[in-house]
Amino acid sequence: MMPDTVLVVGTGLLGTSVALTLREAGVEVWLHDCDPEASAIAASMGAGTVGLPEVDPDLVVVAVPPFITGEVIAEWQLRYTTSTFTDVASVKAVPLHDLMVAGGDLTRYVGGHPMAGREIAGPSGARVDLFIDRVWVITPLDGTELERVGLARGIAENAGAVPVMLDPTAHDRAVALTSHAPQVVASLLAARLAHADPAEVMVSGQGLRDVTRIAASDPELWTEILAANSDQVLDVLDGLESDLQTMRDALRHWSSAEGGRPSDLADITYLLRQGNAGRARVPDKHGDSAAPEYTVVAVQVDDRAGQLGRLFAATGEAGVNIEDVRIDHALGRLVAVVELSVRPEAAQPLERALTEAGWKLRS
Amino acid sequence: MMPDTVLVVGTGLLGTSVALTLREAGVEVWLHDCDPEASAIAASMGAGTVGLPEVDPDLVVVAVPPFITGEVIAEWQLRYTTSTFTDVASVKAVPLHDLMVAGGDLTRYVGGHPMAGREIAGPSGARVDLFIDRVWVITPLDGTELERVGLARGIAENAGAVPVMLDPTAHDRAVALTSHAPQVVASLLAARLAHADPAEVMVSGQGLRDVTRIAASDPELWTEILAANSDQVLDVLDGLESDLQTMRDALRHWSSAEGGRPSDLADITYLLRQGNAGRARVPDKHGDSAAPEYTVVAVQVDDRAGQLGRLFAATGEAGVNIEDVRIDHALGRLVAVVELSVRPEAAQPLERALTEAGWKLRS
Repeated sequence: MMPDTVLVVGTGLLGTSVALTLREAGVEVWLHDCDPEASAIAASMGAGTVGLPEVDPDLVVVAVPPFITGEVIAEWQLRYTTSTFTDVASVKAVPLHDLMVAGGDLTRYVGGHPMAGREIAGPSGARVDLFIDRVWVITPLDGTELERVGLARGIAENAGAVPVMLDPTAHDRAVALTSHAPQVVASLLAARLAHADPAEVMVSGQGLRDVTRIAASDPELWTEILAANSDQVLDVLDGLESDLQTMRDALRHWSSAEGGRPSDLADITYLLRQGNAGRARVPDKHGDSAAPEYTVVAVQVDDRAGQLGRLFAATGEAGVNIEDVRIDHALGRLVAVVELSVRPEAAQPLERALTEAGWKLRS
Repeated sequence: MMPDTVLVVGTGLLGTSVALTLREAGVEVWLHDCDPEASAIAASMGAGTVGLPEVDPDLVVVAVPPFITGEVIAEWQLRYTTSTFTDVASVKAVPLHDLMVAGGDLTRYVGGHPMAGREIAGPSGARVDLFIDRVWVITPLDGTELERVGLARGIAENAGAVPVMLDPTAHDRAVALTSHAPQVVASLLAARLAHADPAEVMVSGQGLRDVTRIAASDPELWTEILAANSDQVLDVLDGLESDLQTMRDALRHWSSAEGGRPSDLADITYLLRQGNAGRARVPDKHGDSAAPEYTVVAVQVDDRAGQLGRLFAATGEAGVNIEDVRIDHALGRLVAVVELSVRPEAAQPLERALTEAGWKLRS
């Protein structure tokens, strides 16, 4: 269900991007921001008209920082007394709590969290295709009218996103588990490297690069996110801490002068197995957690322009679809190994085709 | 400096692969394994001759599990009283300690750790190109004769590896920091997902996939590795535990009824910044930790055979070298976004070339 009229409060990256998707669908959009320059930029990008509607719009999209979202919604509910309200905050319990405290109308609020974003903040970073194929969580309450839920869902679908319905607490638990706690873990592990000997860091490989990749994230932004979801993040970290304790105890007993016990090794193996089980539940790139395991075909290429073109021309000719690619560069040499992930049944035909085309396969 | 004659004790994946690289260089190689079938397979692959040399070989390569490496070296040193000995164990303090306890000759032992391997165990998985461009750590002791070090270094270079000299303790500290502790952290984080609600796991994205990728590793193998390097791994995990404590305290204060203090947020930000600093020290795929930051050009493609070929043909025509590729599959749709990492100065020309060739760029 699409709204005919929408007011977007807060024309940053997300607010302006939502406005662009609405304009593309012919919705009448008003833009408001406490910074007049921000709404002017958004309007100049074709996101709508700066100003406020005279009569209640069908939907008000509040796209302001999580810590003020609840208050801002309550404030605008006083002016537009029949409109449905949604937001884009990355946590859902805090805005709901603040809205309640501020005496807002919970029956007209349907929380939303489009899981998209870019490093570039502000309206000038906005894109109409920002949400395509992204999860957009919608968090109705038990008694929320279906028509109001339909409006929140409608703009998500219109933006090309995949709507997922969760209650607000489940949403916060989910992002704590799948995004906030992983950020903490990656940062704390990377922090161990901050003062390490360069010669010792030199032996690191792809595993460390993968585990610490998100440790490069913006510390200020992530402090806000972690603080806004502190309860749920704590819950995950408490569980992690308890397992870490078990692991450290087992390692300490094992390395102690008295010599280790087999049960110490059993504890370690158990924890690693739990890791296997958890990892198997992470959805793959097709959003399918019961995914087929891909087979990797590794090819040696010179690290220069045109080589990948030749390689992928060859895979295309073989009629094989490449599910994923990793380039493993040589350490200090201009040779790279390209790892092509393909469905198991495609591995042999691909290997044959590439070998025939003169490519050197690597084990 | 290359040996003329080598005995390989233990013809598994690593031992047989080393033997293949030596045979390629014309070295005379004898193969020995407590399992006669394993040495027979290795010999049938052209890795050398099954049996023992009559006179002392220049070098004995002991390629058996870490826990028995020291003892095995001591044993063979009794038979070959002038030969230099090296090994391939993934930890270096334990074999050295065991060799000492067994009364072996430390002056004839030069530790080695080729950082390569595949899931396929045993001689049949061996490859002559297994070590190309991989780090091969060599751990001479203070008084080790240069000629003996030269032999260990010689076979590493001959195998196409990049020799890195570290003392045994520094080696173990390095792999604890860059490989063993990351494995523990990835496994413990993934373990948190083992019993999570499927709907909640559904919201996960690329970050979680990266952090937990190595959590799929073999639990038995990793139990052995962690136990063999328990002291150094504990050292890293103790530091991590202390930071985790600080993070949890800050989050707990912040979420407590009394309300948070600004210093809690400062603690969180500090830890995340340390993560930034550590991450910046991780060598990139060219082994260069002061790496240029790459710019990502994101292109939308249909997820079917031939599309990547067309895309990389276009990048090759543009004369742009692709440093890395990530395929971000659509969630349940057959559209993928291919992220091409290129040197910053190449981004604009590439974007122009791709747009002209009709590709749809994504923000």
